[in-house]
Amino acid sequence: MRVAEPTVERLVQYYRLLGQLREEGRLVVSSQQMGEMLGIKASQVRKDLSYFGEIGKRGVGYHVDRLYDHVSSILSSPGVWRLGLVGVGHLGYALLGHSAFRSDKFRIEALFDVDPSKVGQVINGVECYHLDQMPQVAREKGIEVLILTVPGSSAQACVDMAVKSGVIRGILSFAPTPLVAQDDILVYRVDISVELEKLLFFLKGGAGV
Amino acid sequence: MRVAEPTVERLVQYYRLLGQLREEGRLVVSSQQMGEMLGIKASQVRKDLSYFGEIGKRGVGYHVDRLYDHVSSILSSPGVWRLGLVGVGHLGYALLGHSAFRSDKFRIEALFDVDPSKVGQVINGVECYHLDQMPQVAREKGIEVLILTVPGSSAQACVDMAVKSGVIRGILSFAPTPLVAQDDILVYRVDISVELEKLLFFLKGGAGV
Repeated sequence: MRVAEPTVERLVQYYRLLGQLREEGRLVVSSQQMGEMLGIKASQVRKDLSYFGEIGKRGVGYHVDRLYDHVSSILSSPGVWRLGLVGVGHLGYALLGHSAFRSDKFRIEALFDVDPSKVGQVINGVECYHLDQMPQVAREKGIEVLILTVPGSSAQACVDMAVKSGVIRGILSFAPTPLVAQDDILVYRVDISVELEKLLFFLKGGAGV
Repeated sequence: MRVAEPTVERLVQYYRLLGQLREEGRLVVSSQQMGEMLGIKASQVRKDLSYFGEIGKRGVGYHVDRLYDHVSSILSSPGVWRLGLVGVGHLGYALLGHSAFRSDKFRIEALFDVDPSKVGQVINGVECYHLDQMPQVAREKGIEVLILTVPGSSAQACVDMAVKSGVIRGILSFAPTPLVAQDDILVYRVDISVELEKLLFFLKGGAGV
């Protein structure tokens, strides 16, 4: 089944929301309510879920538990992904400690940095290696995915190194710079300020500044 | 002019890329090349830009400088937005120091936290106040936008406080939890792990794990 990227993004949002509703002990939820809580049109929620065979009951909605399990199975991994995190600055620390980065889908197996005060240390329970050792450590530990929290100026060099390693299949970069990689490595970028730019763009439509 | 949210997101990406190409001294760029560097279809790039009146020359492309100025003017603010940042943990520090958060469009005017070791301190050149003082400080300093880098469990309380302050118009939240606010406050959420979930979803299509 080929699913478009924005659909996957919404599925992840549904999954998060359903998990929360489930913890709150809620039994049913309507597409209208899900849409309101996530800022997505109710019609889009219905369309997405019906694509995966989930039809809500008119006037009732979806069963939270069942829908959670279903979305979870769509997003599930066949195993636990082994990740490496490159660049142990504030952002790296923030990700290591962030609750959204606690998952049974992946485990951060190694940290990499060039700072002698970090290399050789165990940080948040994970060992930090010198960046030069990355290809070797990745091979030994079965790391297939890298998270880059390095400055923009170092990001491309890390990508090139990952390509050369021959074992890295995916890279998630938080560096504010476009990256070029071979076709057989999947590179995703997180631009942590793009949402701020969007927010300010839509705010300027109002009274503002 | 009413512009859809995904379009604004792509405009921000074009803007970043053009700024970089400009610094590299590049004179022209094609929609094909822009698309490849950003992971966007060339036809989408052409469609977006032609919507704003930019038509590339066949076989040549767009003038980098001119296109940069144009996209810049679309995204420009009528003044400098004053921002407050709530929650000075690793993520807060990371944003304060991140190059993507250096902009002449906004200025972080105040930090807010509840930790006594931070309140009263000047951090990265910005004074940190107790969270309880937020409404008053926001009013005094003309802060209209808040960035939330607090744990999920505190995020809604911060939003409620912002609503009550009567001066906050927009909130950007990095907390991994849905938020409810009045209609006259614009709330955007950044889910820093959603891109990782997407990356892993598409990777599992391959050999993997």
